Amino acid sequence: MKNHVKRVYLFGNGFAEGDASMKELLGGKGANLAEMNRIGVPVPPGFTITTETCNDYFKMGRENLLANINDAVQTGIKHIEKITNTGFGNTLNPLLVSVRSGAPASMPGMMDTILNLGLNDEVVEGMASKTANPRAAWDSYRRFMQMYGEVVMGMKPASNQDINPFEVIIEQKKKDLHIELDTDFSIADLKELTIAFRKKIFKDSGQEFPQDPYKQLWNAIEAVFDSWMNERAIIYRNINHIPAHWGTAVNVQAMVFGNMGNTSATGVAFTRDPATGENLFNGEYLVNAQGEDVVAGTRTPQQITLSGSKHWAMLSGVSEEERSSNYPSMEESMPELYHELFEVQQKLEAHYKDMQDMEFTVQEGKLWLLQTRRGKRTGEAMVKIAMDMLQEGLINQQEAILRIDAKKLDELLHSVFDENAIKKAEVLGKGLPASPGAASGMIVFSAEEAEQMTDQGKEVILVRIETSPEDIKGMSVAEGILTTRGGMTSHAAVVARGMGKCCVSGAGNLRVDYKKQTLKAGDIILHRGDWISLNGSNGQVYKDKLKTTKPKLSGAFKKLMQMADKQATLQVRTNADTPHDAATAREFGAMGIGLCRTEHMFFEAGRIKLVREMILAEDEKGRRNALDQLLPIQRSDFEGIFKAMQGLPVTVRLLDPPLHEFLPKEIEQQRDIAKTLGVPVETIIQKVEDLSELNPMLGHRGCRLGNTYPEITEMQVRAIIEAAINLKEQGVDTLPEIMIPLTGTAAEYNMQADIVKETAQMLMKERNITLKFKTGTMIEIPRACIVAAEIAKTAEFFSFGTNDLTQMTFGYSRDDVAKFLPVYLDKHLLPADPFQTIDVDGVGQMLKMAVKNGRLSRPDIKLGICGEHGGDPKSIEFCHSIGLNYVSCSPYRVPGARLVAAQAAIRQG
Amino acid sequence: MKNHVKRVYLFGNGFAEGDASMKELLGGKGANLAEMNRIGVPVPPGFTITTETCNDYFKMGRENLLANINDAVQTGIKHIEKITNTGFGNTLNPLLVSVRSGAPASMPGMMDTILNLGLNDEVVEGMASKTANPRAAWDSYRRFMQMYGEVVMGMKPASNQDINPFEVIIEQKKKDLHIELDTDFSIADLKELTIAFRKKIFKDSGQEFPQDPYKQLWNAIEAVFDSWMNERAIIYRNINHIPAHWGTAVNVQAMVFGNMGNTSATGVAFTRDPATGENLFNGEYLVNAQGEDVVAGTRTPQQITLSGSKHWAMLSGVSEEERSSNYPSMEESMPELYHELFEVQQKLEAHYKDMQDMEFTVQEGKLWLLQTRRGKRTGEAMVKIAMDMLQEGLINQQEAILRIDAKKLDELLHSVFDENAIKKAEVLGKGLPASPGAASGMIVFSAEEAEQMTDQGKEVILVRIETSPEDIKGMSVAEGILTTRGGMTSHAAVVARGMGKCCVSGAGNLRVDYKKQTLKAGDIILHRGDWISLNGSNGQVYKDKLKTTKPKLSGAFKKLMQMADKQATLQVRTNADTPHDAATAREFGAMGIGLCRTEHMFFEAGRIKLVREMILAEDEKGRRNALDQLLPIQRSDFEGIFKAMQGLPVTVRLLDPPLHEFLPKEIEQQRDIAKTLGVPVETIIQKVEDLSELNPMLGHRGCRLGNTYPEITEMQVRAIIEAAINLKEQGVDTLPEIMIPLTGTAAEYNMQADIVKETAQMLMKERNITLKFKTGTMIEIPRACIVAAEIAKTAEFFSFGTNDLTQMTFGYSRDDVAKFLPVYLDKHLLPADPFQTIDVDGVGQMLKMAVKNGRLSRPDIKLGICGEHGGDPKSIEFCHSIGLNYVSCSPYRVPGARLVAAQAAIRQG
Repeated sequence: MKNHVKRVYLFGNGFAEGDASMKELLGGKGANLAEMNRIGVPVPPGFTITTETCNDYFKMGRENLLANINDAVQTGIKHIEKITNTGFGNTLNPLLVSVRSGAPASMPGMMDTILNLGLNDEVVEGMASKTANPRAAWDSYRRFMQMYGEVVMGMKPASNQDINPFEVIIEQKKKDLHIELDTDFSIADLKELTIAFRKKIFKDSGQEFPQDPYKQLWNAIEAVFDSWMNERAIIYRNINHIPAHWGTAVNVQAMVFGNMGNTSATGVAFTRDPATGENLFNGEYLVNAQGEDVVAGTRTPQQITLSGSKHWAMLSGVSEEERSSNYPSMEESMPELYHELFEVQQKLEAHYKDMQDMEFTVQEGKLWLLQTRRGKRTGEAMVKIAMDMLQEGLINQQEAILRIDAKKLDELLHSVFDENAIKKAEVLGKGLPASPGAASGMIVFSAEEAEQMTDQGKEVILVRIETSPEDIKGMSVAEGILTTRGGMTSHAAVVARGMGKCCVSGAGNLRVDYKKQTLKAGDIILHRGDWISLNGSNGQVYKDKLKTTKPKLSGAFKKLMQMADKQATLQVRTNADTPHDAATAREFGAMGIGLCRTEHMFFEAGRIKLVREMILAEDEKGRRNALDQLLPIQRSDFEGIFKAMQGLPVTVRLLDPPLHEFLPKEIEQQRDIAKTLGVPVETIIQKVEDLSELNPMLGHRGCRLGNTYPEITEMQVRAIIEAAINLKEQGVDTLPEIMIPLTGTAAEYNMQADIVKETAQMLMKERNITLKFKTGTMIEIPRACIVAAEIAKTAEFFSFGTNDLTQMTFGYSRDDVAKFLPVYLDKHLLPADPFQTIDVDGVGQMLKMAVKNGRLSRPDIKLGICGEHGGDPKSIEFCHSIGLNYVSCSPYRVPGARLVAAQAAIRQG
Repeated sequence: MKNHVKRVYLFGNGFAEGDASMKELLGGKGANLAEMNRIGVPVPPGFTITTETCNDYFKMGRENLLANINDAVQTGIKHIEKITNTGFGNTLNPLLVSVRSGAPASMPGMMDTILNLGLNDEVVEGMASKTANPRAAWDSYRRFMQMYGEVVMGMKPASNQDINPFEVIIEQKKKDLHIELDTDFSIADLKELTIAFRKKIFKDSGQEFPQDPYKQLWNAIEAVFDSWMNERAIIYRNINHIPAHWGTAVNVQAMVFGNMGNTSATGVAFTRDPATGENLFNGEYLVNAQGEDVVAGTRTPQQITLSGSKHWAMLSGVSEEERSSNYPSMEESMPELYHELFEVQQKLEAHYKDMQDMEFTVQEGKLWLLQTRRGKRTGEAMVKIAMDMLQEGLINQQEAILRIDAKKLDELLHSVFDENAIKKAEVLGKGLPASPGAASGMIVFSAEEAEQMTDQGKEVILVRIETSPEDIKGMSVAEGILTTRGGMTSHAAVVARGMGKCCVSGAGNLRVDYKKQTLKAGDIILHRGDWISLNGSNGQVYKDKLKTTKPKLSGAFKKLMQMADKQATLQVRTNADTPHDAATAREFGAMGIGLCRTEHMFFEAGRIKLVREMILAEDEKGRRNALDQLLPIQRSDFEGIFKAMQGLPVTVRLLDPPLHEFLPKEIEQQRDIAKTLGVPVETIIQKVEDLSELNPMLGHRGCRLGNTYPEITEMQVRAIIEAAINLKEQGVDTLPEIMIPLTGTAAEYNMQADIVKETAQMLMKERNITLKFKTGTMIEIPRACIVAAEIAKTAEFFSFGTNDLTQMTFGYSRDDVAKFLPVYLDKHLLPADPFQTIDVDGVGQMLKMAVKNGRLSRPDIKLGICGEHGGDPKSIEFCHSIGLNYVSCSPYRVPGARLVAAQAAIRQG
């Protein structure tokens, strides 16, 4: 035990030992209480016990630790006594304190708080006579006793459904007295309650309720420390990635009372509007009330400003007469205090340079600030506030950019559910937030049905166990997609994000029965045609149709994006397979296509037949025949995409998936295709069987296809180059980058690259035209990272396919990972889902190795990333740190990526 | 063109410009011809054109190159003329030469040879009168003309089935003359043949047969160079991994004739017996014959030594009288020449210090050696010769060890087919040589049937499309295993090698029809119960039952192994799952078990039910209940294995495969298990469905199982430790090494290692006994190599699972790789199957990284390899080079591995 460690930080009366920079040590609340003192904001005096003390408490055992801080805590109490001119336990002029937790990160409601501490049988009488308000005194006492019993004696019910022993006593008392409200209790009733509570405490815990205020204090401090390790706090930390070793601080502070009559009040206020971001001071208050009354909803809170009050009245249908008499604003009812509060909020915002969320209490005409913190806000407000503050000169461009949370930008691009609708909605289950947005529709269980129903003008949600490339069309017409299996990078998730379509994947508690055409959620059985709603931003699945609100892009947003692009060195491209997606992404500011997957084009009607013919052909001649027919179709696809991206680079990946993905799996479909192709169904069955793979992820795909069937590569290159030539003849500039997938050895890359270059040379010669184009490769096989120097001798660019690279570096199948990944995250065996956020220690090192090796043999090699990580903030920061040239992500993630690229440049330089 | 490069090396008459060390430049034949001259062995004079010249010939164009060597070749011819006192093209005293290819590596019969070059219409007459043997002269001329037409004019038929235009003429002539044998042709007939041949050559090629000997010579040299690039040579090089850039040398040498009457002869001889290795000079010869007559089989060759001749007579049932008159040995018929030959062979063996295979010709009483080379030999002879020569002081221990080809050791351990049986056998197809040995049996298509039939005393071959763990029992009772899908590391291959059982895998041209119970090979349809034979050493599948011969281990073999162990620093362990395998491996010299797979134990009757109960349990309690019943069974398994390996370390891998592997896939079996377990079949179907995975290789397996179901790990550790404690109480020493599979992060390793250590501590305390044991991990995930330093902080050993590491580093599923790997090997996109021989540039670098990182945090960490590569010579050499402590392989590969470990230590130091 180090005695020299400072464990208690005092504050009060304009003085503080701590300040706002000491959040780690004093917690957010404690640091801000200190800071407010320093800048002259009135705060009830008190002291903060450090988070370090909390950690030592768990490490070294409570006795040692508490003994060790004994002196400092006593000094703290004396400090408060002196400022408030009261005495802790003094019966004439008692000091009451609050004991509150306060962690470095906000954990609202997760830990425990005790108010009115210091009351005992004698002090309560002193308080009654001092305040001339014996009812308030006894009410405070019984409330304190209940809180103490719950928090310190462990008499809090485990959940809301369980019985609270104190509430039982209160209810019984009300029954006996035939009264309904707490306020109907007489002083005598309240006294009787305290006696009943003490008995109950002794009965349940075997310990007397302590009369010694110091004993109360020590037990409360212990209890707050203990609450750091309570179950809900642990769960909250797990969800929010807050490390357990941070610990919580304990704030002991003089009580102030907003319920001391009509010159007292309590309230919360914001320096700007947290919903819209408008620069309008606003908030709610209640006269003669305590903090909990404002949130409890038993009384209607009043607005702080007059304009806010009038606006509220209009929305609520309250007449001006009724408003001004029953619900006056603080500006009207307490004009001087209002002005003091107004100045305080101005001071706080100017000081913190960000929108503040404040709690205050007025005790008998004296204003006290109890808390100030960064105010939570909507995505819209986030952008507006940052840009306004920039204009106001409060912050500079870099600061404005750093203020933006990229994840919240989604709100600006996607529909969201109406908040009221959500409150009433019945939750069916929860999956992964695979693609953001909100969607409602009627359940369909197949892609065909999705098409049929939407043709009839209906809105549908496509519900599948998992999706496959055959479902693409159905997915594109559905409002949203729900799967019961698969992770954040399952087929459904990847395709939906590409489409900017709402998707919840891997909702494991739901069960799809294709035969019965039902979706089961516990006892609830839904049928085809029933309405459900999906929130792709948090994974919730609701019964019925919920009201949604549509997004709109503000001018502030556009300015912000322009500013960000100026800061960023990392460019942002998009993953897009269609002219429509390409155009969307370009509008969102994509500087090119980083990944155009040619296989998605293969699934459209009219093409899949040719693709299957190609696959089912007995020899090269048969394959070439089918490929010849596919050529003009692919060429026109590329013309469309190249046109949409005129002047910007377009990276086209050659055919990647295993061929069996294109063949039908159900016998009915196999019969159909046999008929169409004029072969016996047995041939189809045999071929499907021959092509099937135990681990398709590691099978006959990528450049392995092109190297076994070079004619496929030839056709695709021909389509790309001919498209570019045709456009060039029309005066449209193109920059094709032909990407060879799944390279593992330099030899296999070279064999493909030779086909690319020879075919292109031949066509350019034939058409007498010169085109600029690049040939390069995906780096997605661990081996490719190791031999990157060899590959870079001929490859002009690398694009990291971090989905597959993560799969192979970890040995995780993204389609099967749902079986253990949740457990791994839960048990902290992984810090995050590596398919969402790049695993810096493993996969990231592979990338670094490839970057280093690649630049060894080609210093100007172009380096990008086209895996799903390209849209993830932390991963983008990592890409910046290793010096990539660009990231590529789905169209709707482009704005966020641009922003993070700018933030990374600002933070990392 | 560099003129200063020496392109032609002369030899003859005891003088030579080259020597035996110049094989790369002069080819094997040329280097040895030079060397023989240097040591005084009589060799017809000649010269060698270098392999470099061959390469330049292809690089720079023939005209340039040939012009460039013109002078040197003329000098060479003059050199021969001088020694032989003849003239090239001289009609009175002509020089005839042979032009032969000779590559650095032996490529028997792949390239072209021309004999008797220098003959023309005039020279033939001169030769006739000089030799007084006009028939021989004209016969030589027509033979030369045919060879020249075939080799230089491209008139050689493409295959044996095609028509040879020269043979057509000969056959027609025989028909016209009503004769049957070539020897029946008169001199006039032979003259007429040469005229007919000349006409045919002109008709087919448009060019006259050249009369100028130099023109003949240049064309022949060109043709030999060209033959380096003929199709069969290319295929042979591909199969034998001979690089194309080696090129071939050309040897031009004075002709000598063994067919000049009864003082002439020709033959082949070995310095020792190539079949048994016995130190007995032996060989065959024919009087008045040319080299081709010895191999053609038209005359019965005679033995060279008297003892050999008598032995031959005994075996052939020839009386001594008949033998000595009709088939006398050379020792009897040409005693002086015999003694000269005997001395030459002694000289050659003493010089080369290895058994030699020699060709010789006697021309009119003068002995000429035409070739000497290292003699091919059986595995048995290889060992005996090396050990004998060591004892004779010809070579030292290191040299003796380096003489041994580890792959040939297999012959000593496994049955082989009788050579005569193979010649007559009908080949059904070819697969991969998955596990060596020879086996015959009746076809069965299921493991159950294999058990039933063997119970009836029948020998069976288990024929499956692929095998799964459920087939283990059936595999163990079958004589051999044949699969039509899967590679060298498929389930069938790995398990069969472990059992030392013959296996051919991935025989893609065969088709199994389980419904019809047939095996189709082209038009041949075999049924259940039909006999087939497998050669697991080369992948051949034969119809019917073939005769096999059984192996026996010689004393020489045992001595060799002891010697090897003294040289090796790398230890050899075995992969074994049963006491029987463990005992076998120990007999073969294994120094411990490097991999004991616990899951194989799970499949035995009586256990699989409990395993399924465990998997199908709804909760931890249910799982624990089943595990409690499995515990005593596993414990007794471990007791058996530990006992067999008493005193040696045993690495036990905790449960690795995905749980669905243990559940039945067929509905009938699912019904059975439902009945046994007393649950509805739907429950089983649902669970199988729930557990199924798209990429099981990358799924819920390895330590991911132990971390989601810690109770499984607990049970297995308990079984291991309790077994060790029980044995220790009986005085049996054990060294358990508990291995956690599929580690990818330090956190997941630590969670498992904690369970291991805590369980072990608890048991040791309970039983009041101290055990030595180690806890470590498989390194088989690429990520583990990267973070190896972190893992090694707690892991006491690493065992490289290079099968999985290869799968993930390359992104190749070993079960699906057959779809593209053959093409990749064919197109030289890969130098070798990376599942057989470790990929040094990729996977090897991963290993190096892990070794380096692991030793960083634990310098004395124990490092081994337990993948299939542990038995592959090249891979073992690599393991030695990176400083591993041991390799582990299947029992039958242990001797070979011990040998290679010694060789690596000798070569690399």
